[in-house]
Amino acid sequence: MSTSPEYATFHFHALHHADQPLLLPNAWDVASAVALAGAGFAAVGTTSLGVAAAHGYPDGRGLAEVKDATLALALRLNGRLACPYTVDIEGGFGGGPEQVADLAGALAEAGAAGLNLEDGLPGGAGLQEAARQAEMLAAVKQRAPGLFLNARIDTHWRVTTPPPLSETLARAEAYLTAGADGVFVPGIVADEDIAVLVREVQAPLNILFTPGRHTVARLAELGVRRISTGSLLFRTALQATLGTAEAIRTGQPLPEPGGAAVMYEDVQRMVGEEPGE
Amino acid sequence: MSTSPEYATFHFHALHHADQPLLLPNAWDVASAVALAGAGFAAVGTTSLGVAAAHGYPDGRGLAEVKDATLALALRLNGRLACPYTVDIEGGFGGGPEQVADLAGALAEAGAAGLNLEDGLPGGAGLQEAARQAEMLAAVKQRAPGLFLNARIDTHWRVTTPPPLSETLARAEAYLTAGADGVFVPGIVADEDIAVLVREVQAPLNILFTPGRHTVARLAELGVRRISTGSLLFRTALQATLGTAEAIRTGQPLPEPGGAAVMYEDVQRMVGEEPGE
Repeated sequence: MSTSPEYATFHFHALHHADQPLLLPNAWDVASAVALAGAGFAAVGTTSLGVAAAHGYPDGRGLAEVKDATLALALRLNGRLACPYTVDIEGGFGGGPEQVADLAGALAEAGAAGLNLEDGLPGGAGLQEAARQAEMLAAVKQRAPGLFLNARIDTHWRVTTPPPLSETLARAEAYLTAGADGVFVPGIVADEDIAVLVREVQAPLNILFTPGRHTVARLAELGVRRISTGSLLFRTALQATLGTAEAIRTGQPLPEPGGAAVMYEDVQRMVGEEPGE
Repeated sequence: MSTSPEYATFHFHALHHADQPLLLPNAWDVASAVALAGAGFAAVGTTSLGVAAAHGYPDGRGLAEVKDATLALALRLNGRLACPYTVDIEGGFGGGPEQVADLAGALAEAGAAGLNLEDGLPGGAGLQEAARQAEMLAAVKQRAPGLFLNARIDTHWRVTTPPPLSETLARAEAYLTAGADGVFVPGIVADEDIAVLVREVQAPLNILFTPGRHTVARLAELGVRRISTGSLLFRTALQATLGTAEAIRTGQPLPEPGGAAVMYEDVQRMVGEEPGE
C-alpha cells in the first residue's frame, strides 16, 4: 500500500522521535528501493555514490548529470513505496540557494519526505562557508517546509585530520537555526564523540553505520536517532556481483539458485505489482 | 583503454570462435558494467531483467519505458568500457521489423557490438511465429550488419513442458538463414540436450549458466561457445543488499569494510576516470 505524500512526510518526521532510532538503508535505483521497502524498513534513503555510479559518474562533484539522475529516481519512486523515502542531493549540485530550493521543491512534488544537504564542497575541496550553507538550508526550508531537512556536516568526512568537535557543533547550531530538522555527521565513529554530539545538538542526530565498529543497539543506547547505511549496500551489491562473476569464471561452487540470489519471480513481483496488490 | 566501435564489433564476433567459450557477465547499469569490464571479462552483456527492474518495470513485457532505459544505458556505456558490450532488447519492445531495426541501428551507433533478440512473446504468451521472428532478425541484420546478432529461442525458457528439441532446431535454422550470427537457448540445462544443440546448430551456441548445474569447464567440453549469466548477477546483488541490511537490523556481525564491499575510492575510480587513465 502506497501512502499519501502528506502522511509519508509527517510519518518520516515522527520516525526521528520514536522509541528506537530510525535505521535507514540507502538505495540507488528502483529495484533496491522497492526491495528494501518490501523487506519492512520503516523508510528508505538514497545514496549519492550509488546513484552517481549507477549512471557512470563520480559522487560528490556536484555534476548536473547526477542532479538529473537523482531527480529522475525520485520521480520513479513516487507512489511506489510503502514507506517514506528521503533523497541525498550532495551539496545541492553547484547551485545557489534558489537553485537548491528549486530542486527541493521538485523532490517534494515527487513525493520525497526528506532530503540531505551536505556542506562538503565538490571534489573534497573543504567545507562550504557556514553562513552560506545556512542560507541554502533556509531557502530549502522556505520552499519545501514539510520535508525533513537533514543538514550533513562534513567536518569528519573523508578527512585525515578533523577539526575539534566544537566546529561541528557551531555548524550544527547555525544549520538548525536556519531551519534544518536534523544533523548528520558522517565519519564520526567513536562512542565518546557520538555522546558529545547527542548531548549538544538540539535535534535528532544521524550517524553513518560503520561495519565492525557500530551496532544498532549500541548507537540506540548512545541516543542516536537515525542510522544511515550510506553507500555500504551499493558497494556490497557491487562486490557480490564481482565475486559471483569471478567464482563462475574460476569454477568455484555457487549456492543453488535462491540461496545467494533473489528469485527471478520475486524481482518481477517487486517491480511488476503495486505494493499491497 | 576504450576501443573503437569497429574494432570492438570485430573482436566480439571473434570471441565466439576462440579456444575457450566467451563467458559473458550481464550488467544492468554503468557501475556494474565498468566493474565487470574492469575485472577483465572479455565482453559484457546487459540483463533485461536488471535494466527493467532498476527502473521499476518488469522484464519481458516489451514496455516502451524499458526500451528507453535500454537505449539510455547503451548510450552511457558508449566509449566507457575496455571491452565490447552487447545489449538484450527482449523481443524488440513490441515493434515490427522496422522499429526493431531502428533500435538496432541506434544501438550500433551507441557502440554496441551485439544484441539479443528473443522470440518469446511479452508476458509469457507463448512464442512469436517463427517466420515473423525471422523477418525481424533479417531487418536487424540489414540495418546493423556489423552487430553480432544473437537469436534467442525461448522454447525452453520458463515453460513447464518444453516442446521437442526439433522445434528449437527448426527455429535455429530459420533464424540463421535470416541472418542471425548465433543462437541462445535459455532453459536448456542437461548435458545431452546441449550436446544435441552443439551438433545440430550451425553457429555458436549460447547457454545460460545455471548455478549448481553448470561449470564453464564442462560447458566448454560440450562445445558451447558463449555462456551468459543472465539476471544472476543482478539478483545476487539484490540479495546481498537485502542480506546486509537485514544483518545490520538484527545486529549480526558484518565483515570489515573492504571485505564484502567494494571500497568507496574504488567505485569513484571506476566511474571517475576513463579506462586506461
